[in-house]
Amino acid sequence: MPPNRRSARLSNLGEFQLIQSIPRRFTTQGFHPTVRTGDDAAVLPLSPQEHVVISTDLLVENIHFTRKTATFFDIGYKAATTNLSDIAAMGAEPTALFVAIALPPSCTNQDWQEFYRGLAVPCKPYKVQLLGGDTSSSPTVLFIAITITGQVRPGHILTRQGAKTGDLIYVSGSLGDSAAGLTYLKKYRRPPLMSTLSKPMKYLVQRHLQPTARVPLGKLLASHPYASSAMDLSDGLSGDLRHLCRLSKVGALIESDKIPMSQQMQQYAKRIRMAPLQWSLHGGEDYELLFTIPPQWQHKFEQCAKKQRIPITRIGIIQPKRFGVRIIHHDQRQDVLSPQSYEHFS
Amino acid sequence: MPPNRRSARLSNLGEFQLIQSIPRRFTTQGFHPTVRTGDDAAVLPLSPQEHVVISTDLLVENIHFTRKTATFFDIGYKAATTNLSDIAAMGAEPTALFVAIALPPSCTNQDWQEFYRGLAVPCKPYKVQLLGGDTSSSPTVLFIAITITGQVRPGHILTRQGAKTGDLIYVSGSLGDSAAGLTYLKKYRRPPLMSTLSKPMKYLVQRHLQPTARVPLGKLLASHPYASSAMDLSDGLSGDLRHLCRLSKVGALIESDKIPMSQQMQQYAKRIRMAPLQWSLHGGEDYELLFTIPPQWQHKFEQCAKKQRIPITRIGIIQPKRFGVRIIHHDQRQDVLSPQSYEHFS
Repeated sequence: MPPNRRSARLSNLGEFQLIQSIPRRFTTQGFHPTVRTGDDAAVLPLSPQEHVVISTDLLVENIHFTRKTATFFDIGYKAATTNLSDIAAMGAEPTALFVAIALPPSCTNQDWQEFYRGLAVPCKPYKVQLLGGDTSSSPTVLFIAITITGQVRPGHILTRQGAKTGDLIYVSGSLGDSAAGLTYLKKYRRPPLMSTLSKPMKYLVQRHLQPTARVPLGKLLASHPYASSAMDLSDGLSGDLRHLCRLSKVGALIESDKIPMSQQMQQYAKRIRMAPLQWSLHGGEDYELLFTIPPQWQHKFEQCAKKQRIPITRIGIIQPKRFGVRIIHHDQRQDVLSPQSYEHFS
Repeated sequence: MPPNRRSARLSNLGEFQLIQSIPRRFTTQGFHPTVRTGDDAAVLPLSPQEHVVISTDLLVENIHFTRKTATFFDIGYKAATTNLSDIAAMGAEPTALFVAIALPPSCTNQDWQEFYRGLAVPCKPYKVQLLGGDTSSSPTVLFIAITITGQVRPGHILTRQGAKTGDLIYVSGSLGDSAAGLTYLKKYRRPPLMSTLSKPMKYLVQRHLQPTARVPLGKLLASHPYASSAMDLSDGLSGDLRHLCRLSKVGALIESDKIPMSQQMQQYAKRIRMAPLQWSLHGGEDYELLFTIPPQWQHKFEQCAKKQRIPITRIGIIQPKRFGVRIIHHDQRQDVLSPQSYEHFS
């Protein structure tokens, strides 16, 4: 082993590798939570009737967002959405938020108010409350850590670990809109006046700055006997599907023709000579749900989703592990679906 | 109102004022938590038998700590203690930690391991588990946001709001040690080799870098019929007592002769010509508990504390609100006890 292996710079290590190396130091006796390795949230079993789901998300300026393209309202909005999405992916009912925020000296009181105004909007439909937190100054950039709690009935929790060979693979909404919106925003390098944008571009930019957490779908999936696994798409379908397959110990085949893409995204891709499939497979931050349904529940589930007007698309089928994770194109050509997802420290 | 009042720089506003201005945007219907304005934690009532206490703390490099005086082990140790202390102050049993950490590029894998090693030490006696979190890079300084959960039986929760005129005021341990340790550390500007320090100085430095959360005392206070109010001393006795009095709508008189001070601190103060009372009244980060006991329970409570070998000292008595918060000296002279506590953005 090279002498400086132990003190390797963090930039040389993947986040996954870092996380693997810590929890052993903590005792696992006494209190008995349902520790959910690989999932974004932990479950505290408090009573036979009710479990508490807890998830923490970290947003660092110039790593996860930039004030060049997002207003404080947008930053608050998206911070709430990413957390609500973690709860949605577990099939839980979101209940409360705790916000730790470190503000650089350049921030004004109005900035701060705008952040909380944005934070409140996605929380309102679910009556999620802001119950506490901590505020500090920051010597440099804006730093936001949000903890969200949710409630779920035992036995009704969605995980990433239950997909079985033959299960059908679905996603909600359309994929790649957020990546397209980000591409557009990067050209401006500052929050554009939304009113000056064309309707399709406004849609794409909104999908990046103010995505939607699929809370009602999460709850539908968690009602027995629907989903065998679920997660939210934060890093991009290619990386997230591979992650779900690894945790479920299965493979997957998805069909490129079935990937749901919006007209707006496809038109914009055409205009700037991008392949729309690149955005929809590898673009992150869609906050749609990726989930699997055992085939015997396909019909009933699709009916329920239609009744509740939740857009879902079947995109493939779970395969045995040895199959790997692949994509089949309309000419029947198959490719290995390689993740091009975002990893911190990489 | 001056035209730029709304966009006043945050540095001109106190944290308390900031916090007052936000939660109104969030609905308070549906889910019914016990919101605890002014306390460091919120309570989620989940079943008639068990409530969950949740608290979030933010630690920003060069605001709350500096790597010039603390090692990564120390930073982790203290981060755990400050959170355990919030739970102790509510009389709850700590259960789990969630850690959001943003690491600057200069951090090594060893630094990161040391942080978690330090974090685990104060958690071990209480079997607190690390259940989740989020890790990211930071473009600049180290940011740490920790959320801690605890369990408490309904009706056994300590608050800052229940002190009544005539109640006796207590603190645990000795006060000012942390401030003395910090004064010493500031001269060195880097983590000293503890083994080279004299025993008294080692004690003071340890009390600053690795303070103790008073979890067993919190639980004793929460057992009926003991404490009428409690909080942990993070900002210094003068500021924290005033805060408790404001929330309980009472005044207080404390006796300067009764403030518990360690020999080590008094000797060091003498050596560098400091008034030890300054450190013990206004020095922060002792993480001792400040609490009030109705006089009829004084005897029974003091016996229990003695039996459990928890050091406690009676330092004064709660007065009517109009009395204000005062300190009486051995010559019977009374002063208003003015807070000189640390406030962010000030």
